[in-house]
Amino acid sequence: MTDDVKKLVTEAMSDVDEGKTVAGLGEFALISRLVENLGDSGNEIVRGVGDDAAVFRGPQERLMLATCDAQIEGVHFQFDGRSEEQIGRRAAAVNLSDIAAMGGKPTFALVSLAVPPSMSTGTLDLIYSGLKLEFAKWDVRIIGGNVARLPERLIIDVTLLGEVDQSNLLLRDGAGVGDLVCVTGFLGASAAGLALGSNAELSVAPVEQEAALEAHRVPIPRIAAGRFLGSAGVVTSCMDISDGLVGDAAHIANASGVSIGIDAERLPVAPCVVEIAAALKTSTDSFVLYGGEDYELLFTVVPDSAEQLTKDLYEKTGIGATIIGVVEDGPESVVVRRGGKPVVSGGSGFDHFPDNKKSQFKK
Amino acid sequence: MTDDVKKLVTEAMSDVDEGKTVAGLGEFALISRLVENLGDSGNEIVRGVGDDAAVFRGPQERLMLATCDAQIEGVHFQFDGRSEEQIGRRAAAVNLSDIAAMGGKPTFALVSLAVPPSMSTGTLDLIYSGLKLEFAKWDVRIIGGNVARLPERLIIDVTLLGEVDQSNLLLRDGAGVGDLVCVTGFLGASAAGLALGSNAELSVAPVEQEAALEAHRVPIPRIAAGRFLGSAGVVTSCMDISDGLVGDAAHIANASGVSIGIDAERLPVAPCVVEIAAALKTSTDSFVLYGGEDYELLFTVVPDSAEQLTKDLYEKTGIGATIIGVVEDGPESVVVRRGGKPVVSGGSGFDHFPDNKKSQFKK
Repeated sequence: MTDDVKKLVTEAMSDVDEGKTVAGLGEFALISRLVENLGDSGNEIVRGVGDDAAVFRGPQERLMLATCDAQIEGVHFQFDGRSEEQIGRRAAAVNLSDIAAMGGKPTFALVSLAVPPSMSTGTLDLIYSGLKLEFAKWDVRIIGGNVARLPERLIIDVTLLGEVDQSNLLLRDGAGVGDLVCVTGFLGASAAGLALGSNAELSVAPVEQEAALEAHRVPIPRIAAGRFLGSAGVVTSCMDISDGLVGDAAHIANASGVSIGIDAERLPVAPCVVEIAAALKTSTDSFVLYGGEDYELLFTVVPDSAEQLTKDLYEKTGIGATIIGVVEDGPESVVVRRGGKPVVSGGSGFDHFPDNKKSQFKK
Repeated sequence: MTDDVKKLVTEAMSDVDEGKTVAGLGEFALISRLVENLGDSGNEIVRGVGDDAAVFRGPQERLMLATCDAQIEGVHFQFDGRSEEQIGRRAAAVNLSDIAAMGGKPTFALVSLAVPPSMSTGTLDLIYSGLKLEFAKWDVRIIGGNVARLPERLIIDVTLLGEVDQSNLLLRDGAGVGDLVCVTGFLGASAAGLALGSNAELSVAPVEQEAALEAHRVPIPRIAAGRFLGSAGVVTSCMDISDGLVGDAAHIANASGVSIGIDAERLPVAPCVVEIAAALKTSTDSFVLYGGEDYELLFTVVPDSAEQLTKDLYEKTGIGATIIGVVEDGPESVVVRRGGKPVVSGGSGFDHFPDNKKSQFKK
């Protein structure tokens, strides 16, 4: 860092105390303060922030992964009860989850911010701290980014790169008839937390409220689980649950040309969901089957290997998984059964353009 | 592509004729139609669009490059006289320019869109066509992306990857005292085009107007020039001009710890700039020195090699370059002289948060 940049950053830091805004700070000083302490040197990174593009060594004989996902204020998050740090962590976590779903190891991130000029630099610092914190947990380095002005709201757009051995790569299209369908962790808490957010006066135990809100605010990317599943050699397909169990199972069904059968009675319903659904006078299904944003891994396993795999997964990573169904022959579809009888057929997940009345998945 | 997706795309295509909106189409169908015909298969791409993350082979023994830049409606572009295709091409071009500035070859792109639900799918298709067209020119493949809802305006956020041989890598920090300062092409046309945009009634010859508007709407990324300069072995620093000549020269000065001396009388002023500046009753300097968004390459060359290099560059790539100054000892700064006398010292470029009154560069 040159002395000029140091000076700008020093000035920038003093601005925080004065409660100055992004507009008052200016773009270059803003970038300087955001990227401070990223640790963008070392053998792998030839050049991080501070040039026209980031430069890094591609790992030999490994596949590179790349994904991007944007978090938009008022669409994906609100400045409600959550902390700024949680907003940043979430933007990192949803991208980490995509790399996890491939069986990969996340490596480098680029963070593109669109920021209202009136936003305080202190707020933005806290958000960026959340990004850095969540990425640091998984040994990810931010190697580049962009900051632009957007009058109305904050957007955090993250591109995340990763790597994976060819033999460990998990895709959506390998599910075979007879494979068992599994899911990590518990379902529905994130959607219950979202529903709670606008119903603060509900009579739900504080511990359940907190569990649901936390699940929604900062999902835990299943990196360790994904890497273990990738290396296990018996997982035939995998993805993360972002649009909802039924909608995402449909993605696997479509990609693999199979029908996914799910036994509703086996679903690992998050403990907080029951009480919150009752308080909201709705079914747990609305959260568990369609809620979305659980960021658990949905995967299929060759027959006879699933039980041992889930045991090993828990032993190696501390992350549980549940067998919830079986891959069936038939038209590409998702069939959820309760007591053996279909209660759902087809299905749809979260749609960013919800005016759309068409089902995203029908036959 | 599965039959279901094909069906959605077919439905989507028929929607165009009916003038339907993005909201009416829905996210998944929208993505399907956007990514159609990307050609995301082949040896290099293991998996393009259609899974949680894109998978590609890292080139052996080459450095990978990564950059991102967002184009925001109302900030970086307007739906004014330009075509939708031009808007898409610009979003690609500004990122391509960053890879050019490193001496690199662009390879893969991720396109993250934030879209008003009311936008017509036909409009978005045309914009995406522009992106694909501009990327295709440089043999870049779109391997992933994201689409989210944003009520107020369109944002096109591109992450572009590239590669470069270690020995060809161009950075900002290598300028040495005595090196000659050069720039490709001509300067000021883009800023003149931007100024023209809001002054449609000016008495400027149509051919000059068109030249300026075109330069602003679709800058030409100097990929071939950047690669040639990287391979030449005599270029000590390089960057693209996005924030304006003086502001960007300051970036090289800061990174290299030198003073950049520029001779104003040598500057390659774009032909259209003179007439437009006169019509607007302003100096050409405002466009040439501070205008920005020229996306030409600003670079320094070891003494005695510059003249031959510019000749070779023109011969090999058809792109001209001009020697505009010399790297000087002294505090990190930019000094522009006319007739030997300093007329500018210090300087600043385009700031995305223009309320900021502080100079971005001072000593």
